[in-house]
Amino acid sequence: MKLATLRTTGGTAAARLDGDVYTEIAGYPDLGALLAEENWQEIARGAAGPEHPAAEAELATVVPNPSKVLCVGLNYKSHIQEMGRELPTHPTVFAKFADTLTGPADPVEAVAEDPELDWEGELAIVIGRTAYRVGEAEAGDYIAGYTAANDISMRGWQFRSIEWLQGKIWARSTPVGPVMVTSDEFDPAASTLRTTVNGAVMQEHPISDLLFKPNQLVAYLSTILPLRPGDLILTGTPGGVGRARTPELYLKAGDRVEVSVDGIGVLSTPITEPAHLPA
Amino acid sequence: MKLATLRTTGGTAAARLDGDVYTEIAGYPDLGALLAEENWQEIARGAAGPEHPAAEAELATVVPNPSKVLCVGLNYKSHIQEMGRELPTHPTVFAKFADTLTGPADPVEAVAEDPELDWEGELAIVIGRTAYRVGEAEAGDYIAGYTAANDISMRGWQFRSIEWLQGKIWARSTPVGPVMVTSDEFDPAASTLRTTVNGAVMQEHPISDLLFKPNQLVAYLSTILPLRPGDLILTGTPGGVGRARTPELYLKAGDRVEVSVDGIGVLSTPITEPAHLPA
Repeated sequence: MKLATLRTTGGTAAARLDGDVYTEIAGYPDLGALLAEENWQEIARGAAGPEHPAAEAELATVVPNPSKVLCVGLNYKSHIQEMGRELPTHPTVFAKFADTLTGPADPVEAVAEDPELDWEGELAIVIGRTAYRVGEAEAGDYIAGYTAANDISMRGWQFRSIEWLQGKIWARSTPVGPVMVTSDEFDPAASTLRTTVNGAVMQEHPISDLLFKPNQLVAYLSTILPLRPGDLILTGTPGGVGRARTPELYLKAGDRVEVSVDGIGVLSTPITEPAHLPA
Repeated sequence: MKLATLRTTGGTAAARLDGDVYTEIAGYPDLGALLAEENWQEIARGAAGPEHPAAEAELATVVPNPSKVLCVGLNYKSHIQEMGRELPTHPTVFAKFADTLTGPADPVEAVAEDPELDWEGELAIVIGRTAYRVGEAEAGDYIAGYTAANDISMRGWQFRSIEWLQGKIWARSTPVGPVMVTSDEFDPAASTLRTTVNGAVMQEHPISDLLFKPNQLVAYLSTILPLRPGDLILTGTPGGVGRARTPELYLKAGDRVEVSVDGIGVLSTPITEPAHLPA
């Protein structure tokens, strides 16, 4: 199944996508609320709410209010090498917040405070059941499905201090979606991730190259704290980011950056003029 | 006013502390829910729910479900020097999650995975109104009050990678409370922070020494993303952590670590045996 969160006149609604029609899943304001139900798959399969042609549907970020968003840095050999680092023995982990997420077709602001706006196309894991201290062998049972993310990074602020966080959490800067494909219908190891800027390919990489695989990440992170239904794990970006190019290349107002994951869909993000005066 | 979140037979409840009696604020399951109301101060002043003697009250973490917890590292000269670092030009910021927080008298587990469990006594800011791109001059208007936190850190995992997060977010490892003192009744610059382990003073520092002050932190972080009512900002720890001692000193099962902030109260945390087998 393909599941999403739609923007409707009354707020948002969880929905199932079949072909080119979204069907609302009545009673669930978003995918996170749906995933909180133990029998969410059954509920989603039985959905028979209002229908919306995909061409007219407006999509919210796939899970608008996850209790946590964990992000893995340095998880493709090609990106580790381009950033001039050693292969890590453990995942590198940072965070995002719900306020940082935005929809798959929403604009992202070229903020006045940082001219170094960079792309990072990623596969993201969506948690389907509370996972606390689960082993790698059973970790897959806790994954509801997969989606795509663009970890748009403000590189100037990212490297202002020794912690990346302040370059990674700007308001509505991380598109996630368009849909979550349930894990029975998506094999990360058989899919390709692609990022384009104004149509030019910047990243194109088999997801099978992930250093720490989805099951390993769920097991590792669940050792630290409970992963809840709807929580997101962004698995990292492959080589080809703007900062690692010669000369460096950054996003500016008027650009369009697209991240696609085969089998999931496309995040298509127009970069817009600063909406706020510099702080 | 002093406000808190009580554990009651029916769940949790926001409450006001007067002398040694807590009065429940009916209709608000926790302090975060109360702070979401524009007139939260008026509601809190008028509270007349069930009363509980403080000696018998069981306190939850002061805001159980903040939408975000932002933490500032390296914000006292004494701690920056003991960790062998330069004075920073910008705040260093990392994150925690709701699942990481715990109550002011709750035990914290000495996890089997990391023997380097360290204390970090801190002052914490509680946000009272949504703050987005506010200036330093008005930032104080967005602060509901202050509380205390112990940013207990798993140093082994903290330094496994270049990002600290994985040593900072273990389940129920960060005591916060016991109460939030509203900002009209608490002056951070006139207060002292103290951390003891088994009664021995490990940290004792005037909070006036903070490098980036509360108003500056709110303004800086609100440039990046909206701070919501109930969100927490942990302002950083002064010198005296266990890792910086010779020899290094870490918490072990059977220890009691206490963090006190004059005017706010004490976090008293017993360290308990590992509750989980090593992952």
